[in-house]
Amino acid sequence: MLVIGIDPGTAITGFGLVQENPDGSLIAVKYGVIQTSSDVDMPQRLLELHRSLQKILLLHRPESGAVEKLFFQRNVRTALSVGQARGVAILALAEQRLPVAEYSPLEVKQAVAGYGGADKNQVQQMVRALLGLQEVPRPDDAADALAVAICHLHTSKMKDLVRDL
Amino acid sequence: MLVIGIDPGTAITGFGLVQENPDGSLIAVKYGVIQTSSDVDMPQRLLELHRSLQKILLLHRPESGAVEKLFFQRNVRTALSVGQARGVAILALAEQRLPVAEYSPLEVKQAVAGYGGADKNQVQQMVRALLGLQEVPRPDDAADALAVAICHLHTSKMKDLVRDL
Repeated sequence: MLVIGIDPGTAITGFGLVQENPDGSLIAVKYGVIQTSSDVDMPQRLLELHRSLQKILLLHRPESGAVEKLFFQRNVRTALSVGQARGVAILALAEQRLPVAEYSPLEVKQAVAGYGGADKNQVQQMVRALLGLQEVPRPDDAADALAVAICHLHTSKMKDLVRDL
Repeated sequence: MLVIGIDPGTAITGFGLVQENPDGSLIAVKYGVIQTSSDVDMPQRLLELHRSLQKILLLHRPESGAVEKLFFQRNVRTALSVGQARGVAILALAEQRLPVAEYSPLEVKQAVAGYGGADKNQVQQMVRALLGLQEVPRPDDAADALAVAICHLHTSKMKDLVRDL
């Protein structure tokens, strides 16, 4: 069972592909970030993000995808910008007919670190341990995407989505 | 010169194609809304929006597109949702290599009604008059999209974008 987690943004989008083996162990098949230059205008940035995600999905063919729900209260402008990247990411998943799940930051922390009060560092250390990596994955956006993928694999929502295919 | 204005939303997206004739007169070539059902999940709604916009763009082949900038301060949740639809709309334009312009509500009001303090009804009446329509275009989202298209045609930004192609 291979799933992709995505942490979308217009400047930087993290992605993480996690495979669950029959024995329940997890492997990070591939992770990284898609960066677009601020010198390029927004339509071109969204186009690059979409193309890069399409390539990753066609290359690795995950069975389902997960994106973090956002609840930040800070800034409507940021929400709009993240929303644009998020829309393009969800579209890329839907175009490949992948079921898409969304998880709140609390759900991700609970699934990965065992409790919702875990801080960023604790979540990252758990991601490293669960995936058997030597180092915490970098940059943060890639680690966040891997955490969402792990949450997805640990959550029955994923199984339900795949069952309904 | 044919341009498309888009007023994006996940439930309802307005679009309006406006042709400027050599004598400066304007014609509404086509306008309407793309609606997606709230019974369908977000990935599917974004997919439908993207496909519908692709069809409209391939059928009418406008030379450039315009989207309204959003500055509403109300609700981060709404901003995120509108942002997702907006990202998909801008992507659809970028995929056709169309230059994309963005205008603030103030710019749209000034370009269409002559002053930034115009109310919704005044803007809609001007859209009707400028396009030589018998009635104000319905629903509001279609009228808003036509207003953005008219603003685009009346603004030098559009000429600059097309010149740089």
